[in-house]
Amino acid sequence: MGEFELLARIRERLPPAPPSVRLGSGDDAAIVVAGGATATSVDALIDGVHFRREWCSLRQIGAKALAVALSDLAAMGSEPGEAYVVLGVPPDIDEDGCVELLDGMAALAAETGTTLAGGDVTRAPVLTLATTVVGHVTGPDDFVTRAGARPGDTLVVTGELGAAAAGLLLLERGSGDVPRVGGHYGYSTRGTSALVARQLEPSPRLGAGLALAAAGAAAMIDISDGLGGDAGHLAAAGGVGLRIDAAALPLAPGLDEVAAAAGRDPLELATSGGEDYELLAALPATRVDDAAAAVAAQGETTLTRIGEVIAGEGVEIRLPGGGSLAARGFDQLD
Amino acid sequence: MGEFELLARIRERLPPAPPSVRLGSGDDAAIVVAGGATATSVDALIDGVHFRREWCSLRQIGAKALAVALSDLAAMGSEPGEAYVVLGVPPDIDEDGCVELLDGMAALAAETGTTLAGGDVTRAPVLTLATTVVGHVTGPDDFVTRAGARPGDTLVVTGELGAAAAGLLLLERGSGDVPRVGGHYGYSTRGTSALVARQLEPSPRLGAGLALAAAGAAAMIDISDGLGGDAGHLAAAGGVGLRIDAAALPLAPGLDEVAAAAGRDPLELATSGGEDYELLAALPATRVDDAAAAVAAQGETTLTRIGEVIAGEGVEIRLPGGGSLAARGFDQLD
Repeated sequence: MGEFELLARIRERLPPAPPSVRLGSGDDAAIVVAGGATATSVDALIDGVHFRREWCSLRQIGAKALAVALSDLAAMGSEPGEAYVVLGVPPDIDEDGCVELLDGMAALAAETGTTLAGGDVTRAPVLTLATTVVGHVTGPDDFVTRAGARPGDTLVVTGELGAAAAGLLLLERGSGDVPRVGGHYGYSTRGTSALVARQLEPSPRLGAGLALAAAGAAAMIDISDGLGGDAGHLAAAGGVGLRIDAAALPLAPGLDEVAAAAGRDPLELATSGGEDYELLAALPATRVDDAAAAVAAQGETTLTRIGEVIAGEGVEIRLPGGGSLAARGFDQLD
Repeated sequence: MGEFELLARIRERLPPAPPSVRLGSGDDAAIVVAGGATATSVDALIDGVHFRREWCSLRQIGAKALAVALSDLAAMGSEPGEAYVVLGVPPDIDEDGCVELLDGMAALAAETGTTLAGGDVTRAPVLTLATTVVGHVTGPDDFVTRAGARPGDTLVVTGELGAAAAGLLLLERGSGDVPRVGGHYGYSTRGTSALVARQLEPSPRLGAGLALAAAGAAAMIDISDGLGGDAGHLAAAGGVGLRIDAAALPLAPGLDEVAAAAGRDPLELATSGGEDYELLAALPATRVDDAAAAVAAQGETTLTRIGEVIAGEGVEIRLPGGGSLAARGFDQLD
């Protein structure tokens, strides 16, 4: 397989770039004229670390590589602009496999308004994807960082928690009813299949992120490492404490059953399982109703109050029966 | 090793970011306010594909990962702005190893005025680096693409050709007198050690790229795949032909001896060896003297006339005794 031939084949499958992308893939660099301020984030997916090829299609892997990167732009309250991908191809994936993978990425790019503007294809011992995403806004203050939470703010979270962790358990136990045909949104939205879909086909909460930013979110982060861990980042960045009401957490439908079958605590899965790619935000209490309405109007997910920002530091997750859960999250190289 | 601890350790080693970088590593995304037009390029280095760890230090690998990415910005005639790195860490590299690698990258960043503005650290089966670089100019027409060569233009190349290929031969034969202490510019500039250095510690020709752009270069590309292959890209992008005079090529000192010892043709190494990371440019004949003076004034390398742009297509490398060499370059996933 020739690199140039593959790149040409990929390029001809991409839609025309918007006017801001003056030069896309095929030169030494892409040229973009956007003005204003940009947010840039990079994310890697590596076979055996972030996914297992036997669990999913190449198309799903391509889409997930872009989705997890776009989730960081969602957490900035940014629309997506361009994406650049490094694709490391192992010996057992041929040119058609590369095209399938990039078709999955291109489909999510089209759906989210992201331009695939460049990349690099190389050999690798295992399938390796590194995705860079860039978002543009008018000025730097239009972005929502992790750092702005203030005591008295309300903590909100989009969607449901624990679904991706439950989906991972199902995949590991081989009981996930996993369709292999792939395709974004190829899963049922009900039952265990929906939990597996949340693990394999995460959706970046771009609309919710924009809605939360417009509604006055003071701080925001995406939940990739688990609610406990990412709440800890939000607390540390703002120099504040977070008090989360465990009974208020929007647990994913089916989580209880999967956790029981696996002998796991559903609350632990929901708070430390990671990979839900929902958004955690702090915003003034007076703005919560507007934010919830704005998120709902986007049609992609819901917004739930889960706690409040307090003076102090750290994260406390209060249990319904009294006592509290240690806030945990991943702190490992994964 | 905790990811967050490692990231904190890396962040504290980086110099303060310039005012254009409003938010560096540590949030969901970096925020940059630059205005104008941006050039963005991504490049990957993977152990066993692009380097061998037994040949070089982690510090050298970190620097090379940034250097090869910056070479693409040099070829656009762009100053470097920000860099973002995905670092995939295998089990046998510990936190100190990661810091050594990123120190190598940070040293080259400081030397070239590049801000390391973000990244992602993950586990990987082998050492894997994916580097994204962004450069800024006032407007998109300030960049030099591959596409502007016109019949009658003169072809020029910076520096010397074949050094990296000769260095690779020396490393493969175990006769490269390879110092392992690492450090950018840690090699002698003479003899086989200099050839090995060109393989392990390439220098992006950023100053020369700026000088060529300012002098009116019509098209430019960096020589990563070999002169023959990259000249082919320049010809195809411009819809022109290129005629290169083999006798005019600036062969690296020592190339003849290494090629003879290895039973290889020095001209073949110089035209298809790749990885020299010199710049190939087309510019109006009337601008060549000014361009050469401007490149020389940068103090990093020289400029040599090697041929001309003609009507037609493809690349012809004319041999001194008559006849011509097929233009070859890498077209494989490496």
